[in-house]
Amino acid sequence: MGKKTEFLYLSERDTIEAGVLDAKKCIDNAEEVFTLLSEGDYLMGGSNHNSHGLGLVFPKESPFPNMPVAGPDRRFVAMPAYLGGRFDVCGNKWYGSNAENPKKGLPRSVLTVTLNDKDTGEPLAFMSANLLSAARTGAVPGVAARHLARKDSEIVAVLGCGQINRSCLRSILTQLPQVKKIVCYDIFEAASEKFLSWAKEELGVDGEATSDLEAAVRGADVLTVAASRLKPLYVKDEWLKAGVTVLITGPMQTDTSFWTSTKLIYDNVRLHEAYVQEAIESGDKAGYYKGVIGGPIYTLIDEGKMPALKDSTSIGEVILGKKEGRTNDKERVTFVACGMATFDVGLGYDLYKTALKKGIGQKLILWDEPYQQ
Amino acid sequence: MGKKTEFLYLSERDTIEAGVLDAKKCIDNAEEVFTLLSEGDYLMGGSNHNSHGLGLVFPKESPFPNMPVAGPDRRFVAMPAYLGGRFDVCGNKWYGSNAENPKKGLPRSVLTVTLNDKDTGEPLAFMSANLLSAARTGAVPGVAARHLARKDSEIVAVLGCGQINRSCLRSILTQLPQVKKIVCYDIFEAASEKFLSWAKEELGVDGEATSDLEAAVRGADVLTVAASRLKPLYVKDEWLKAGVTVLITGPMQTDTSFWTSTKLIYDNVRLHEAYVQEAIESGDKAGYYKGVIGGPIYTLIDEGKMPALKDSTSIGEVILGKKEGRTNDKERVTFVACGMATFDVGLGYDLYKTALKKGIGQKLILWDEPYQQ
Repeated sequence: MGKKTEFLYLSERDTIEAGVLDAKKCIDNAEEVFTLLSEGDYLMGGSNHNSHGLGLVFPKESPFPNMPVAGPDRRFVAMPAYLGGRFDVCGNKWYGSNAENPKKGLPRSVLTVTLNDKDTGEPLAFMSANLLSAARTGAVPGVAARHLARKDSEIVAVLGCGQINRSCLRSILTQLPQVKKIVCYDIFEAASEKFLSWAKEELGVDGEATSDLEAAVRGADVLTVAASRLKPLYVKDEWLKAGVTVLITGPMQTDTSFWTSTKLIYDNVRLHEAYVQEAIESGDKAGYYKGVIGGPIYTLIDEGKMPALKDSTSIGEVILGKKEGRTNDKERVTFVACGMATFDVGLGYDLYKTALKKGIGQKLILWDEPYQQ
Repeated sequence: MGKKTEFLYLSERDTIEAGVLDAKKCIDNAEEVFTLLSEGDYLMGGSNHNSHGLGLVFPKESPFPNMPVAGPDRRFVAMPAYLGGRFDVCGNKWYGSNAENPKKGLPRSVLTVTLNDKDTGEPLAFMSANLLSAARTGAVPGVAARHLARKDSEIVAVLGCGQINRSCLRSILTQLPQVKKIVCYDIFEAASEKFLSWAKEELGVDGEATSDLEAAVRGADVLTVAASRLKPLYVKDEWLKAGVTVLITGPMQTDTSFWTSTKLIYDNVRLHEAYVQEAIESGDKAGYYKGVIGGPIYTLIDEGKMPALKDSTSIGEVILGKKEGRTNDKERVTFVACGMATFDVGLGYDLYKTALKKGIGQKLILWDEPYQQ
């Protein structure tokens, strides 16, 4: 006798009902995931267990007129993971991105997450993951703000005024009750003004919008960096004051003197080791480095100017009290995060459990019994 | 104003209604995909555009009691692809496998396929893919039987009597009307007898069940090989008669003298080049070769005993008349297929289109309009 398999479908609206916009809960979830990462109780793809994901790489040009070609933010990526602890579940995030999407009334990326029974592979849930992915991305610097930022931080500079930084700021502000002002910077002035209006309305925080990067950075106690990859963001060492906390979610360029003097905490050292390994395997290490957030850091490590990854600190170790985070109010602390499928699986799982409990979503039947066993 | 996004959900039953069991149609679909592959009008994962997929690799042992560990057929794999031609669509197959599943009334693997708009990334369909995957896997040797087997083939040896070979045989028989007899071999005699009963009933073909591999192979005009990976299958050169067609869907070992004397046709030479590249990058070439169907062949190529992959033939080129397939009734022709996400996307797309036309499946709303753009 075959076994019936059912799973839960959650639309974007269902994920809201299940709590995806509750920034505090998302931070707690991400913090828990970080501790599992530092303990090693997870698997991502590949034989190194730490592959970020597998993407369709669109060619620069193609003899086939319909084939997608490389373009701004244009990609599809599959990101499988197993997450341990109380989650104990497998899943896969799958998404397509295209900078042209907003012209069509769509977000730049369209994402879904599948959760699966770790033993049988049966789907448990299939869900819209745009808000999930934004929430987990934002929750990561939220965790870092909780553990690394000065509690008396008053000014937050928002570098890059897109959707990602909305999630980041929403999350960071839950951790820093003294924040009085935000300074919003974007290469597009309209974007920084729109962001500021949104922040006033939704988060009740005041501030200013500027297209002067130096003005935005000087005076900031916390930087949240999630600028578009379209134009590199160069933040000079001298602009960054003592005691600053730099939360890096998107690419940032800075002087070597900053990298070598800041206390650097990684989201997960193993992930960065995997990036370096993949860079070597690609046959074009420098080219690969250019495409990843940690690229400038790996270059300095290779040159012997920064400590090796194996001697570095993951934030999970700070959370667990195994290594030191910020130790005084003067040091400049930088946190680098790259995005891991484990966070999608972790937060997706809690949304799924909440949905089950509250009767949110649509039950779908995979089969009443499998046609073939 | 945001754009509404809807997509179609197809349960296993829906995929049956949409025609997944129609072996002839599935072969036509796979044949079309093969021509696109040989023209290069597709993309799979990775910078080489030909990665088979990205899997969770379970460790042999783990300090975490809940973490899945390596076991028979135990894996999760994500397989993304873009397929061109009239399909012009992206998709991802995602599945988990576990040899323990049948004890729970489940198939060994549980599979789903997502199809996505190539430009926006929006999901078009999410579907149960167990039958889809079996059908496309079976259709591949069906295409090979159509183009490479002697039309007067009378005896088919079925090596490995599981679900995969059911699909293969169903497909092969649609192409070879002269077949009078099947010989079913499996290491488990009960499996071969069960297979024979099924074939009599569903396909109306008579034959015999045996646990004597030599007896099964000698006299066969066509071999369909899809045995479990649990025990290697060693087929001796001397058992394989002149004019035989060997259709390899699962691992087979044989004498070097067979490999070097048969005419070998690949499903897609580029895929095998990618396997060899990944083997080199893995740092354990020999170990990697052991895990893939083409391993014994790549070893002989590396030793200079067989022609290089770049000088080899893909079946798409035979279909298009660009290279020769079988040229006489005496030569022994072997076809090697490894499974590509392009076939899941191709067949999935036709099922989706049929379902749309016939009103099969369930429309699901991703969002009425996206919460964030």
